[in-house]
Amino acid sequence: MIHKNVDQAKKASSCSSKTPQNDADKQRMEMDAMIKDNLARIKHKFFVLSGKGGVGKSSVSANLAATLAKKGYKTGLMDVDVHGPSIAQMFNITELLDIAPDTKQLLPRRINENLTVVSVQALMQDKDQAVIWRGPAKTGIIKQFVGSVAWGNLDFLVIDAPPGTGDEPLTVVQTIPDARGIIVTTPQEVALADVRKSISFCKTVKMQTLGIIENMAGYTCPHCNKHIDLFKSGGGEKTAKAQGLNFLGSIPFDTRVVESGDDGVPVMMYEAPGPFKDAFEKVVENILKQIEV
Amino acid sequence: MIHKNVDQAKKASSCSSKTPQNDADKQRMEMDAMIKDNLARIKHKFFVLSGKGGVGKSSVSANLAATLAKKGYKTGLMDVDVHGPSIAQMFNITELLDIAPDTKQLLPRRINENLTVVSVQALMQDKDQAVIWRGPAKTGIIKQFVGSVAWGNLDFLVIDAPPGTGDEPLTVVQTIPDARGIIVTTPQEVALADVRKSISFCKTVKMQTLGIIENMAGYTCPHCNKHIDLFKSGGGEKTAKAQGLNFLGSIPFDTRVVESGDDGVPVMMYEAPGPFKDAFEKVVENILKQIEV
Repeated sequence: MIHKNVDQAKKASSCSSKTPQNDADKQRMEMDAMIKDNLARIKHKFFVLSGKGGVGKSSVSANLAATLAKKGYKTGLMDVDVHGPSIAQMFNITELLDIAPDTKQLLPRRINENLTVVSVQALMQDKDQAVIWRGPAKTGIIKQFVGSVAWGNLDFLVIDAPPGTGDEPLTVVQTIPDARGIIVTTPQEVALADVRKSISFCKTVKMQTLGIIENMAGYTCPHCNKHIDLFKSGGGEKTAKAQGLNFLGSIPFDTRVVESGDDGVPVMMYEAPGPFKDAFEKVVENILKQIEV
Repeated sequence: MIHKNVDQAKKASSCSSKTPQNDADKQRMEMDAMIKDNLARIKHKFFVLSGKGGVGKSSVSANLAATLAKKGYKTGLMDVDVHGPSIAQMFNITELLDIAPDTKQLLPRRINENLTVVSVQALMQDKDQAVIWRGPAKTGIIKQFVGSVAWGNLDFLVIDAPPGTGDEPLTVVQTIPDARGIIVTTPQEVALADVRKSISFCKTVKMQTLGIIENMAGYTCPHCNKHIDLFKSGGGEKTAKAQGLNFLGSIPFDTRVVESGDDGVPVMMYEAPGPFKDAFEKVVENILKQIEV
């Protein structure tokens, strides 16, 4: 069903014809109703944003969802990064998603009792195929991900969007108007310049922002145990203050995050503690403080 | 003029009305002629791509352009990353671009005798403003950057596009059909998965690809001088071999690249040698070997 829907999304461009197409209108109304119905059963929606790519937005999304699930909350994770979906790899999801025989809804992949995941990657037969879609097709697939997936009753839905302020983030905000933003950055100015754009985006679209996470902030040499600022330091907190946003915390760089991203088990699902885990726990606490769960 | 053009680009969506608009058609034909004229005066076009963000694509673009200019080639650098333009910061371009009084063309910023730069950032009054444009508007601005900028006679034009395989890369390829791809990655699998998508993109759009650069490959601890694989190692070369592409070389991680990116002078413009500079020189040699200049 979803493959047919994807085809339809690709055909349904943003250009509306002058003569009203009753079938298309009807389908759109049906989809809007499905989206509304699904969203009503999800208590809190977190939208993880970054201005710049490569700041660890997908790692943060994956570990945030894993932590919330570990705390006992029913959690969904939705990867809408059409061009560079990383979430499937991070949870070792290699097979296509299944379809429910009765409702014909797409079934999210169950990672554990509390955590389900959907990634655009899990819809593709050939994982190395580039998705060369223009904006309107991407809008279509994101709406499908909200409306055609059997999310069920959730405490949290974590949404991982591509970097920047283009079609995908805009569609997420328009489709999920009560989503709350969590902004991820690294400490250096080139990244912070893009973060200020993300903050401007949140203000423009009037999305509530829970705060800024500074990722890859500091590293401990595995040989001599001395501290190294790989991407400078302190920029995230400074930017949060200057922009009147909450600073949710600094997370150190950890090669285990790189390895765990490749191995399919997010660090927050490990049992052993460590500086990354400790810092990440604090970030999640700072997020939950602002929410009534 | 460009601000008016940007407005027009934003209005001119992809939806063509049923009644032919002669003015719009005429403008489009004029723009196509300007693009053709500009491209005819540029010998070689390099399109720097990455599947994943944050792999250092903009650093590589900036340092590639700086190195070519240093070797005596007339070089232009065009930043078409509408949502996260980093190139202006990397060359400390803080003012808006000027307009030629006679031709009304946009004047690229002159960095030195051989190097000129244009970034979407240099068109914005408020640097922290998010550019919330959907696909068609982005297509418009990229075409303007090729056709309305007084590039003059160039040996090389280096194009820095946003990560992924969406509107912007597609527009670059359609506007500059003889552009040759240079793919940047980091060594870990999550990045390589996206690189394979970039390779698939190049094949799909039939763009010649010069090869793969592996960036942030290895780091030397500044305290104990021991080697650390921050993002694993060897993945770029392995992927190049598996995909039948040239491997252009590995470049080590260097905090000086982070700092120089913030300070406005790319490392390749420094005088002092170092592991990053040496490795980068080899990469540029491997690129130039494949080109008749």
